[in-house]
Amino acid sequence: MDCSVAQCLEVIGEWWSMLIVRDVFLGFNRFDDIQGRLGISRNVLNQRLHHLVDAGVLVKVPYSTRPPRYEYRLTDKGRDLWPVLTTMRQWGDKYAAPDGPPLEVAHKACGQVAEAALVCSHCGQRMDAHDVRTVPTSRAVLAAGPLREASARGDG
Amino acid sequence: MDCSVAQCLEVIGEWWSMLIVRDVFLGFNRFDDIQGRLGISRNVLNQRLHHLVDAGVLVKVPYSTRPPRYEYRLTDKGRDLWPVLTTMRQWGDKYAAPDGPPLEVAHKACGQVAEAALVCSHCGQRMDAHDVRTVPTSRAVLAAGPLREASARGDG
Repeated sequence: MDCSVAQCLEVIGEWWSMLIVRDVFLGFNRFDDIQGRLGISRNVLNQRLHHLVDAGVLVKVPYSTRPPRYEYRLTDKGRDLWPVLTTMRQWGDKYAAPDGPPLEVAHKACGQVAEAALVCSHCGQRMDAHDVRTVPTSRAVLAAGPLREASARGDG
Repeated sequence: MDCSVAQCLEVIGEWWSMLIVRDVFLGFNRFDDIQGRLGISRNVLNQRLHHLVDAGVLVKVPYSTRPPRYEYRLTDKGRDLWPVLTTMRQWGDKYAAPDGPPLEVAHKACGQVAEAALVCSHCGQRMDAHDVRTVPTSRAVLAAGPLREASARGDG
């Protein structure tokens, strides 16, 4: 499907995948730790880890040779999922944490507990669904199929 | 699971759900339009739409009484998924659109094609995985279970 949202979901669209990525961000890099935290079957966890390694989101790195033991680390591609994870967490905090969020995030530079806000990379002003317009690229104009229609109709 | 990422995935973690939300953002509000665009079975689409309505992400609104016809609109809770959708799209643009992105987004305020950047809601500076520290809330400290451990170890 010629859509970048679909391409992202192709990698992380399965429930467990994003929770595995979350755990690796939190510093849980080893199979047994992740398995214990998620309460997922070893078989399913193995599959999802393979998929994330194949997709270039995680790499498997040896941390012991005798016995051979591996841990999982984020690649640049994996670390670039941080904005997705963060916006998901903030949405969950707002709508599905009636007793308050279990975790907060402090910005090291200013030391404050803060949220990540979305701003325009050009002018720096806040950016929200209402503030944007979808623009077809030359590729979308050339391409056949539904996204051409979306580009023509799409408005925020 | 006491985690806001898991709570968010509970609602949108199924592949089709986020693509349906994307379509409604693009202005495709009607069953047949969405069905045609996604090429999904009517049965599955019905289930996913029900789930999104039950979760308070979409509302079903009549647009014709004879015959009775409905369309789907985003609630505030649904519109608040825009940051998740946007960060997913940008990740897909970067890593899975070798010929360039099919769609771009223009910021109405400044008129420029731009990306959404994440900044600290407190100081306004850029915020990335490296710039943050995970802080346990009083709730996390009180709660039993794995997140307590995550809070203690988690750093970025």
